[in-house]
Amino acid sequence: MAGESVKLLGFWCSPYALRVKWALKLKGIEYEYVEEDLVNKSPQLLQYNPAYKKIPVLVHHGKPVVESLVILEYIDDTWKQNPILPEDPYERAVARFWAKFADDKCVPAMMGAFTKQGEEKEKAVKEAQENLKILESGLGEKSFFGGDKIGFVDIAVGWIGVWVRLTEEVAEVNLVDAKTMPLLNAWFERFPELPTIKECIPPWDKLLEHNRNFHKRLTAGST
Amino acid sequence: MAGESVKLLGFWCSPYALRVKWALKLKGIEYEYVEEDLVNKSPQLLQYNPAYKKIPVLVHHGKPVVESLVILEYIDDTWKQNPILPEDPYERAVARFWAKFADDKCVPAMMGAFTKQGEEKEKAVKEAQENLKILESGLGEKSFFGGDKIGFVDIAVGWIGVWVRLTEEVAEVNLVDAKTMPLLNAWFERFPELPTIKECIPPWDKLLEHNRNFHKRLTAGST
Repeated sequence: MAGESVKLLGFWCSPYALRVKWALKLKGIEYEYVEEDLVNKSPQLLQYNPAYKKIPVLVHHGKPVVESLVILEYIDDTWKQNPILPEDPYERAVARFWAKFADDKCVPAMMGAFTKQGEEKEKAVKEAQENLKILESGLGEKSFFGGDKIGFVDIAVGWIGVWVRLTEEVAEVNLVDAKTMPLLNAWFERFPELPTIKECIPPWDKLLEHNRNFHKRLTAGST
Repeated sequence: MAGESVKLLGFWCSPYALRVKWALKLKGIEYEYVEEDLVNKSPQLLQYNPAYKKIPVLVHHGKPVVESLVILEYIDDTWKQNPILPEDPYERAVARFWAKFADDKCVPAMMGAFTKQGEEKEKAVKEAQENLKILESGLGEKSFFGGDKIGFVDIAVGWIGVWVRLTEEVAEVNLVDAKTMPLLNAWFERFPELPTIKECIPPWDKLLEHNRNFHKRLTAGST
């Protein structure tokens, strides 16, 4: 990888940046990491991603790629070692579907369970449970969404396991357990224990503190 | 293509089904078209797309592919003739970015301009204009988003030209004109005139009547 100029603009606890870190790690790509201040976004971030003004941004040979799922595809198209998408067109479509489903359906409901109160919170919890149950059907009896080894969906969806646990603890809800979703629950335990995955996940205590503070700010004054 | 079993579950004026029709037409793939009744969805649709229960669904050799952008990728991965995504990884990423940007940013704002009233409508119109202006920057001075010929973004975003004109007429707003967005406006004229594109677009009068009725139902009783 000598001579490759690869830079990642991220934020330490961003799940979307985490996806990119995992993919680069799996491919064995060395990169420069730039931590962004999301309150005072750098001119560099605004220049590289004027449409969304968001991290993550992957900068390769000076050219920016944005949107985390687009970045994952770019990484897989660019560095062929350890492919993360399957070769078969149908399996590729299935993988893309689950990654999109998690972003479209699981994430907003999980956010609702974290941020809302009262009846709205209950509704969001139910919706999150239903959608996570559908996500579980994509995993089935396999060890990973990718089969025997992790692939595109594991990388795209892997952070959900961490954030489900954070939401359960901080917002005092139950989303996924061994009784209701045994397969997904087991994958939540299995996936973050893989060494390449584990080393990119921020320390639990730090994540918990950050999310407790975030939750306090969101719910301050509400009943 | 003899022996290929290809079926598309769609709805006549669905922009998302239109994307798939265009891609199949450009690839020269023959297929069976099944019109869905969206009020009484068929058991077939619910079986093929239990997660979203939505059209379009592409069924190839009995296996369903859902979500229109995922279907476009599947079509390009499966039938290699007349590629719609570029070969270069960076150009592929750029194409995927614009397709996603249109869905994430332009579509909700355009829907708001169509469905909302009063101040909310004004806000949505402004947002739609801003995002369509950003979309225009992806086209630039090229004839098509794909360059000299149409590609992934043109197919993904092409219906926006038709629906902008419908929204302007039905909701009595201005979104894109030759003064504010000359490049996008010219592409709105150019793209639907291509024979393979034109023949899939429903007749204007029928679209207009359908959308006028839809708009009436949405705004009935509101001020």
